[in-house]
Amino acid sequence: MKRIRTELDDFEIGFDIPAEPGMAENEIQTPCLVVDLDVFERNVKRMRDRCAELGVRLRSHGKMHKSVDVALYQIEHGGAIGICCQKVSEAEVFARGGVSDILITNEIRDPVKIDRLARLPKLGVRVGVCVDDMANVAELSEAVIRHGSSLDVYVEIDCGQKRCGIAHGAPAVALAKAVSAAPGLMFAGLQAYHGSAQHFRGFNERKAAIDAAISQVRETLSMLEQEGIDCPIVTGAGTGSFEIEGSSGIYNEMQCGSYAFMDADYKRVLAADGKPLSMFENALFILTSVMSHAKSGMAICDAGLKSQSVDSGLPVIFGRDDVEYVKCSDEHGEITDPDGALAINERLRLVPGHCDPTCNVHDWFVGVRGGKVEKLWPVSARGKVL
Amino acid sequence: MKRIRTELDDFEIGFDIPAEPGMAENEIQTPCLVVDLDVFERNVKRMRDRCAELGVRLRSHGKMHKSVDVALYQIEHGGAIGICCQKVSEAEVFARGGVSDILITNEIRDPVKIDRLARLPKLGVRVGVCVDDMANVAELSEAVIRHGSSLDVYVEIDCGQKRCGIAHGAPAVALAKAVSAAPGLMFAGLQAYHGSAQHFRGFNERKAAIDAAISQVRETLSMLEQEGIDCPIVTGAGTGSFEIEGSSGIYNEMQCGSYAFMDADYKRVLAADGKPLSMFENALFILTSVMSHAKSGMAICDAGLKSQSVDSGLPVIFGRDDVEYVKCSDEHGEITDPDGALAINERLRLVPGHCDPTCNVHDWFVGVRGGKVEKLWPVSARGKVL
Repeated sequence: MKRIRTELDDFEIGFDIPAEPGMAENEIQTPCLVVDLDVFERNVKRMRDRCAELGVRLRSHGKMHKSVDVALYQIEHGGAIGICCQKVSEAEVFARGGVSDILITNEIRDPVKIDRLARLPKLGVRVGVCVDDMANVAELSEAVIRHGSSLDVYVEIDCGQKRCGIAHGAPAVALAKAVSAAPGLMFAGLQAYHGSAQHFRGFNERKAAIDAAISQVRETLSMLEQEGIDCPIVTGAGTGSFEIEGSSGIYNEMQCGSYAFMDADYKRVLAADGKPLSMFENALFILTSVMSHAKSGMAICDAGLKSQSVDSGLPVIFGRDDVEYVKCSDEHGEITDPDGALAINERLRLVPGHCDPTCNVHDWFVGVRGGKVEKLWPVSARGKVL
Repeated sequence: MKRIRTELDDFEIGFDIPAEPGMAENEIQTPCLVVDLDVFERNVKRMRDRCAELGVRLRSHGKMHKSVDVALYQIEHGGAIGICCQKVSEAEVFARGGVSDILITNEIRDPVKIDRLARLPKLGVRVGVCVDDMANVAELSEAVIRHGSSLDVYVEIDCGQKRCGIAHGAPAVALAKAVSAAPGLMFAGLQAYHGSAQHFRGFNERKAAIDAAISQVRETLSMLEQEGIDCPIVTGAGTGSFEIEGSSGIYNEMQCGSYAFMDADYKRVLAADGKPLSMFENALFILTSVMSHAKSGMAICDAGLKSQSVDSGLPVIFGRDDVEYVKCSDEHGEITDPDGALAINERLRLVPGHCDPTCNVHDWFVGVRGGKVEKLWPVSARGKVL
């Protein structure tokens, strides 16, 4: 039996690491996140190669994994020119970790957060942020002047998501004009992300939604041109739709995130051929152990709501047709086991329903290769929601 | 404008605290958890007084809040004889924090975790754990002998939850007998918790489920007595049903957790009079800010899936009938605002759908009283799932 620590009073921060390099996968303490490193690396390289073929640049979305190590791998080996994220506190973590080009794909309105945002470029990092409101332009400009810094500013248009974003066309152009005129701000382009379309099941449904977005962007670009405003970047797209934006001739930056790890929900999205998206494979798992089997036909595992988010459905047990995860409570998962195949302490790999909020409840990614733990990556921006 | 830190390079652990004592509630950085201290203290004292009236002891469930500070308050002011929790790693945090009587209301099967569990009593803490399988008795006994410690062991019966737990009656008695005979283990009683019944909406439905549990416990107690096995404690119950167990004459220890904070789901549970449970009030909120309002009729706030769990439904906006939280994505909440009442940076208190997994995604509870921040409590066992 392998012990993580041997001394009774050795209770300290870091005590609760779920694994150490060299451990076998079935020795890993559960529940925890496991990354199949071979699969992860394949996913990252496939996206790199596909973006190169499409002639678009990739800015991987760090909100998915919240990990400096994953971000740096995507930049060093995966063709990413930088990362995007959603919060100032996330951006700070990535900047401290050595990521030098960061776009916050979100609006920042609180004065304390704007102040922190305006200080971030002074770390030597290129920082972008989105706006969808005229008042925000003055707030950002005032802050960068105060700190002697500058920001790339993207005008976010609501291209179908119906969440943040100003209307395309004239309102977006007026906002871009204000950004261009504001001291310390550079109008860097359009943020045009249709998030919900990523998860539309059928390819034609996704295509229709993204085509509508593309035509709104095209119209806005043409009006910007008429006004003599240069729009270097049109950024958006996700794992479910990037083939469409990427071949539009309009978008030139992809913000895909989930492709690196994938999840059960993305495996329900269908490609143009009607089959599940096959370019990317499941690299992320919640490793869980069977911890009670007092009734025949039903095993209980140790991964519940505190190890995952079930907003997009229950996890799927990887590589097993004979057992099914059917119910989730705070600390337990209920698994049908009609053949009595599962033993106490047996490890199972669960494919999370939704990778982003699942990563956010864990402190570590345990990287495994060939059945052995190779490394641990901290979920560096875990819980950074400010 | 109040800044949390002033120096650019002062990026360090602890930087991301959402508030400081003395701040006004509308200055708190969001999203974060806010505890209304007056309400929290009332809830805790009401449960203390009610358990005293019922003549049962209270062991507050620490899995809900995962906070040493809340646990110590419940012990010092709320009549709790100790706390319960679900994981060895949680128990370690509570033990380090000064809680001296801890029951893990769960089975522990992994050898590394059993080893850690067996070392915990050496910190001067009384530690209990549940069993539902004969093999586990030998595992626990072997570990406490190895470490020269001892454990209170509760036989968990499945009294209707259909999750962990051995069948009541003869199988439970055989297990209790094995515990009694095992060196280093003390048979402390029966764990008989019906979790799903807590959330049954109607009182009669809850009563029927708990009455069935009570009769299973009664039958088991009578068989234990016939075997000459003393059963000091029958422990179980939750916020939704404790009146029923507490007045049964069979249960003598209540494990309520949610009563201290409450959530939107528990406010849908009805008391015997057909009205929502009124003894306990909402003390826990996700404080959120409006961060985009580019479309009339719809405001966007900064609390999404990374600030809460939506397994039991969306959050409810506290004290407002004019606006409604209708959709949740990773970092955003969509709020209908038909009258255009909401302003950018306006703070709203969200009542989380489910308190336990919502606490687990945050690092801090911000305690407020009279509109001012009074103190910050760390969510000490946040993420402790091992």
